[in-house]
Amino acid sequence: MKHGANIYKYAKAANCAPHELIDFSSNINCYVQEPTLPLSHALVSKYADSSYRALKKVIAKNYALKSSQIALYNGATAAIFSLLEMLKQKKVFLYAPLYGEYQKACEGKKDLYIIDRIHNIDEEPLEKSIVVFVNPSTPEGTHYDLEELFATWMRQKCTIIIDESFLEFENLPSFREKINSYKKLYIVHSFTKFYACAGVRIGAIFSSKKNITKLQTPLWNLSSLDVAFLQERLEDTQFKEKSRALHRAQKEELLSILEHSELFEEVVESSTNFILVRAKNAGELFTYLLQNRLLVRQCGSFDFLTDAWLRFAVKGVHEQKRLKELLENFSL
Amino acid sequence: MKHGANIYKYAKAANCAPHELIDFSSNINCYVQEPTLPLSHALVSKYADSSYRALKKVIAKNYALKSSQIALYNGATAAIFSLLEMLKQKKVFLYAPLYGEYQKACEGKKDLYIIDRIHNIDEEPLEKSIVVFVNPSTPEGTHYDLEELFATWMRQKCTIIIDESFLEFENLPSFREKINSYKKLYIVHSFTKFYACAGVRIGAIFSSKKNITKLQTPLWNLSSLDVAFLQERLEDTQFKEKSRALHRAQKEELLSILEHSELFEEVVESSTNFILVRAKNAGELFTYLLQNRLLVRQCGSFDFLTDAWLRFAVKGVHEQKRLKELLENFSL
Repeated sequence: MKHGANIYKYAKAANCAPHELIDFSSNINCYVQEPTLPLSHALVSKYADSSYRALKKVIAKNYALKSSQIALYNGATAAIFSLLEMLKQKKVFLYAPLYGEYQKACEGKKDLYIIDRIHNIDEEPLEKSIVVFVNPSTPEGTHYDLEELFATWMRQKCTIIIDESFLEFENLPSFREKINSYKKLYIVHSFTKFYACAGVRIGAIFSSKKNITKLQTPLWNLSSLDVAFLQERLEDTQFKEKSRALHRAQKEELLSILEHSELFEEVVESSTNFILVRAKNAGELFTYLLQNRLLVRQCGSFDFLTDAWLRFAVKGVHEQKRLKELLENFSL
Repeated sequence: MKHGANIYKYAKAANCAPHELIDFSSNINCYVQEPTLPLSHALVSKYADSSYRALKKVIAKNYALKSSQIALYNGATAAIFSLLEMLKQKKVFLYAPLYGEYQKACEGKKDLYIIDRIHNIDEEPLEKSIVVFVNPSTPEGTHYDLEELFATWMRQKCTIIIDESFLEFENLPSFREKINSYKKLYIVHSFTKFYACAGVRIGAIFSSKKNITKLQTPLWNLSSLDVAFLQERLEDTQFKEKSRALHRAQKEELLSILEHSELFEEVVESSTNFILVRAKNAGELFTYLLQNRLLVRQCGSFDFLTDAWLRFAVKGVHEQKRLKELLENFSL
């Protein structure tokens, strides 16, 4: 499965520069806050503290963890690849659909099994396998109550990976604290989405101190600029509050646009910052929107879905107004 | 071998903050130029072009390469680990002393052989093995004429890794262009040293297009801030000229300080921005300097050297003045 965010390719198709494309395919927080951090010679030129203590301290505080329970990587993708390489277990059960990185990280190294969580969520993984669950899920944005599944996984002695990268938009309950009671649990956390920083490459794994020690993150794998930026942003409580307020308002608006349009047969309830719909003329609609420099996510590359499904990220006032206009003017 | 740059640990020993330590252990260009790049929301929030085309174009221009001959990693360390993992050959010959990353990248995965390049450089590596040579070398800063060795390696059908991370201070001849004629050659290049950006995590491998394709760098492994910074700096010809002018003057000054001091039995000729010396009372001198908040590199962790050897990086006017004072006032 390909990642959806290649706006550079789509901008070419739309015959415009990448920044001219309104990108509803990318699930980045729509709240705009200019970074205040100054780029200085001192920051750029020095070797960072290779264990990134100060940043870990802020993350620990934000997520009610200990610094020793955090491993940092240059992006969640790097975290996923490292984690799956470190884990000895051969059998991996992916609850699909989910994004493609997990599958890619397993290719040629693990025996891969796919569980269709939409139609057959009760299918049991094999004993002592690795299970991967993204919660809230993508591309639907469903927040699953995982208690029952978790009990099954524990009974099966599974190594459990829960990816909570889309959790923060609506402050949903996390499985983080369970790393204290179940020793084979790993939480993957991307800071990119909620903290509006896809260009900043920092992702985390949360697990027991013992597991984190085993992970042995590479030396100096993070940019000092990224570290300084994320530290500042995590400390900014205003950013979180304002983001969530804007998210609530804009999601309500997007939902209303999609539900009032007659172009969609189904609009899926979401607990995060994107909404999945089934469109009547998805192919034509996608092309029409792209020709008008508005990119949405076609979901045919997700397991168990087709290109009839489109995913819209929650965006700002201006972008959603443009979407509304375009949908109203669409005719076959 | 440990990396030398943990100023955080030494600052603690010197009872001061890391920024209060004058760091002669770290081989970073001493020319100070404040970055002019503004940190913007647009830069931070968007996914970068995952193939980093614009940066590769600038690198290609600077180093007389094609973009297709460049693989980019979040630091030279990541490049070294990836390269050694990709290469199937089991036997690795390291020309030592060299920094520790190569050995670490081989541990548990390769059969490691050490060639003492100071006393026994003519020892031949086994057929079809991997050879690693850092040129200019560290910790001495010797620039080797590698033509003869290269011929031996080719005859032995070796896979050749030449690390040219310290080459740019004195504009020395590179082996880069040979990637066009010998298909098993990889050049490792760190931008950290000459471009004065240890906090910016970008390193490169230069090789044939075919080899670069095989390397398959991870998706979005670079920080957009780092990319923007390095792009700006590589385009800045003034930075290079001013750096080299300052380097020449300061290196001459450092050499004079070290040669005129009676504390050293040997001062090694260097072709880059650090100078290796053998000190009469190295342990005491190291401790005395550290107590005075000046850190130098003890070389006992390098193969075939002891802590009698100290390495001094070329630093700015103020720092070298302080070094001179401290050396003059040292008494046992």
